[in-house]
Amino acid sequence: MKLNCDLGESYGAWRMGLDEQVMPYIDQANIACGFHAGDPMVMIKTIKLAKQYKVSVGAHPSYPDLVGFGRRSMQCSEQEVTAMVLYQVSAIYGVAKAQGVGLTYVKPHGALYNDMMKTFTIRKAIMSAIKQFNNAQQTKLTLMLQATADIQCHREEAADYGIGLIAEAFADRCYSDDGKLLSRSLPGAVHDKQAMLAQVKQLLTEQSVTTDTGKTLALDADSLCVHGDNETGVQLISTIRAIVDNAV
Amino acid sequence: MKLNCDLGESYGAWRMGLDEQVMPYIDQANIACGFHAGDPMVMIKTIKLAKQYKVSVGAHPSYPDLVGFGRRSMQCSEQEVTAMVLYQVSAIYGVAKAQGVGLTYVKPHGALYNDMMKTFTIRKAIMSAIKQFNNAQQTKLTLMLQATADIQCHREEAADYGIGLIAEAFADRCYSDDGKLLSRSLPGAVHDKQAMLAQVKQLLTEQSVTTDTGKTLALDADSLCVHGDNETGVQLISTIRAIVDNAV
Amino acid sequence: MKLNCDLGESYGAWRMGLDEQVMPYIDQANIACGFHAGDPMVMIKTIKLAKQYKVSVGAHPSYPDLVGFGRRSMQCSEQEVTAMVLYQVSAIYGVAKAQGVGLTYVKPHGALYNDMMKTFTIRKAIMSAIKQFNNAQQTKLTLMLQATADIQCHREEAADYGIGLIAEAFADRCYSDDGKLLSRSLPGAVHDKQAMLAQVKQLLTEQSVTTDTGKTLALDADSLCVHGDNETGVQLISTIRAIVDNAV
Amino acid sequence: MKLNCDLGESYGAWRMGLDEQVMPYIDQANIACGFHAGDPMVMIKTIKLAKQYKVSVGAHPSYPDLVGFGRRSMQCSEQEVTAMVLYQVSAIYGVAKAQGVGLTYVKPHGALYNDMMKTFTIRKAIMSAIKQFNNAQQTKLTLMLQATADIQCHREEAADYGIGLIAEAFADRCYSDDGKLLSRSLPGAVHDKQAMLAQVKQLLTEQSVTTDTGKTLALDADSLCVHGDNETGVQLISTIRAIVDNAV
Repeated sequence: MKLNCDLGESYGAWRMGLDEQVMPYIDQANIACGFHAGDPMVMIKTIKLAKQYKVSVGAHPSYPDLVGFGRRSMQCSEQEVTAMVLYQVSAIYGVAKAQGVGLTYVKPHGALYNDMMKTFTIRKAIMSAIKQFNNAQQTKLTLMLQATADIQCHREEAADYGIGLIAEAFADRCYSDDGKLLSRSLPGAVHDKQAMLAQVKQLLTEQSVTTDTGKTLALDADSLCVHGDNETGVQLISTIRAIVDNAV
Repeated sequence: MKLNCDLGESYGAWRMGLDEQVMPYIDQANIACGFHAGDPMVMIKTIKLAKQYKVSVGAHPSYPDLVGFGRRSMQCSEQEVTAMVLYQVSAIYGVAKAQGVGLTYVKPHGALYNDMMKTFTIRKAIMSAIKQFNNAQQTKLTLMLQATADIQCHREEAADYGIGLIAEAFADRCYSDDGKLLSRSLPGAVHDKQAMLAQVKQLLTEQSVTTDTGKTLALDADSLCVHGDNETGVQLISTIRAIVDNAV
Repeated sequence: MKLNCDLGESYGAWRMGLDEQVMPYIDQANIACGFHAGDPMVMIKTIKLAKQYKVSVGAHPSYPDLVGFGRRSMQCSEQEVTAMVLYQVSAIYGVAKAQGVGLTYVKPHGALYNDMMKTFTIRKAIMSAIKQFNNAQQTKLTLMLQATADIQCHREEAADYGIGLIAEAFADRCYSDDGKLLSRSLPGAVHDKQAMLAQVKQLLTEQSVTTDTGKTLALDADSLCVHGDNETGVQLISTIRAIVDNAV
Repeated sequence: MKLNCDLGESYGAWRMGLDEQVMPYIDQANIACGFHAGDPMVMIKTIKLAKQYKVSVGAHPSYPDLVGFGRRSMQCSEQEVTAMVLYQVSAIYGVAKAQGVGLTYVKPHGALYNDMMKTFTIRKAIMSAIKQFNNAQQTKLTLMLQATADIQCHREEAADYGIGLIAEAFADRCYSDDGKLLSRSLPGAVHDKQAMLAQVKQLLTEQSVTTDTGKTLALDADSLCVHGDNETGVQLISTIRAIVDNAV
């Protein structure tokens, strides 16, 4: 089980995320590509930091929405999504290469991620961009998406594009019986520390989570999404890191 | 002698340039990379058009200034310029590759071009980005800049970065004795059609131009910059194309 | 019956719309406020042109989406919509005042317009911005929206915010029985010239349109939306202008 | 002597400045208008906070450069500067009015401020925007600029536009004999706490500063610029506040 985290989300004079503190604990850095955060200077700095800690670098492409931080769904066409993902993946791939770092995967950001999980058209648009990129550059970028009950279906879709998947689970979010995340607007949607650590252990040892109704739901995740926005988050990451390391 | 033209400068719903009409006549397309023009959809369309007519594709990076169309000098640091050029070159390189098209050179746009010609720091910043990119991707992108009296000096600078140069001349602009372009604010700065065609012929057959004071100035250019903004411009390009083809 | 048209949709170096040709024929100019088009220089120029032809100036606020030209729905919160409309209305109000021109109404642009017609929350958000503005500046900006079967309901909503409405009809679009526009993806959605002029006459003389199924649908419109993107459009506008003037 | 501070410089998801902590101590809030920081939601929030503490609200317009935070000089034309200042002042004026708050002055931000101090053309462009706005809205917005040896000349320029000035001094910066700030690249350019508080006292009681060469330079300032980016800055502001209050 890997740990992945959104990083490089500063922009110009604005700082976001405790990247320096988080990087030592994670395996995969989802790095912003300029459309929701991450100007070229920030990208270079973050990639160098990932290199220093031997962390895998993933592209974190977004809808073009700086003021909304890529969190607002935008009704884009399939062609627009393919083009914007191809552009952003290309940009970070080249910037990373120039730092001596290879790009290994793509994790869509925010609303683009949510739309990808909900809509086949958006998944196709994203996979098409990755396929085109992989074929052209002879790389094997994989796609990181959410481990749900539909993961087998998603794997087949991705196989059709010749793309491997990284299925990620969420440490701090409560799952419903259908394998989706409980809406943040509902009570119990976000775990406290205790529940979160329990969920991490269960994911590691039993490849399952306990849903909001108490059922056991099989969930085979390759990576765990963690958050490094503040000191508390960083401490949790180090705790999760220790749990994962001990489980091996 | 090649013909180069700025293309792909539409943006979203806004159209600019008669790209479809110009492409058949030119050898090198300087394609916008998103910072002054050229969103991902426009980039893909323009690259496909260049492919159709076997036109070389060059990156046309800019200061980040959509509303100013990259024409306003911005006081950026050397690091910022290197980062923004690296980002834009990476983006178009990957997007072009995905269309089966290789990128061959970099021509900075507008104010970035002018600042490059004026300031060693900006030239270094741009060359550093190209060098990093070339080394990382094992490509040999060259840099297109203006053929001036300083071209030998510029070639030495570029050699230091392992970069080849493309020296371009301007068909429609009157040169002063120091090898610079006469300021557009002065009378006679822009040639009429007759004077322009005469200058093209002189450049082709004698590798020189006649300056505003009547002197003959040696000017060894590899490429000629032409403009395809309107029907008149396109007709001139086809005339220049014929002159160049006949000169061979 | 007034004629309204979207104008001032150029941006920086990009031109859009034949504003100079359209302005003499219309009554109401919906002027972009910078979020989908219309930088400050373009706004000033367009407002001056409206002043010259004594055309009413309306704010044409949009989602913040330059590359998508405000045509893509964005999932914004009610507060975000109120804030962005208030900002844009304020900006154009002050810019217009400085040219000696009063602002008289607000017509949301593109996707924001469509979302307003579909969603009560978005209508409320927009009306709330206008109400706040009207109260603060002691103005009486009205809201332009589509004349549909729901117009009475919309008038009541607006009355609740102390706002008057301008109901607009579309000259060139075929209506369905429910008073909505036939989707552009369907055959017959956009009228040819003959059908368009017939619809204009019917709107003027009988306050109704003939729907795609042949039914007569009452439609009491205060204004007619026309398009001045190209020469054909401008000619149609002058023809419609003559019809409207003769009908009086 | 008033205290002024740049506030409302967050943007979307990015936070900047300890606005809540700073507001109680200052007299004048320079609030970003969206071009370098400050989206509409942030503007509203900051204006409400200013209202709560009865702090004067000033427009803080900038060059359009989010990624550079308005700190990079951009070679804009006089007309462009007038238009962008008019737009931003209009936007914040209307947004503030809707919160029941009047706008009282304009302080250009970052590079626009520096260019204004250096270049008559930029000063004229800014004053022209303020004059147009004042005349149209029957307001009396003043212009905040740096108290230098040229302040009398600046007052005459402003009088020509019917504009009053607010001359501001800097608490933490060392002045050179010519009344300019010592470049940040030189040693001693930024005062330590002790020197800063001494300078504040001298400004208050003797209307002068001691320059880097030890000379006494008369400096009649109406306002003191303070910085609230971090906890240390906030503590200094409260100390300065106490000194100013005691001096009265």
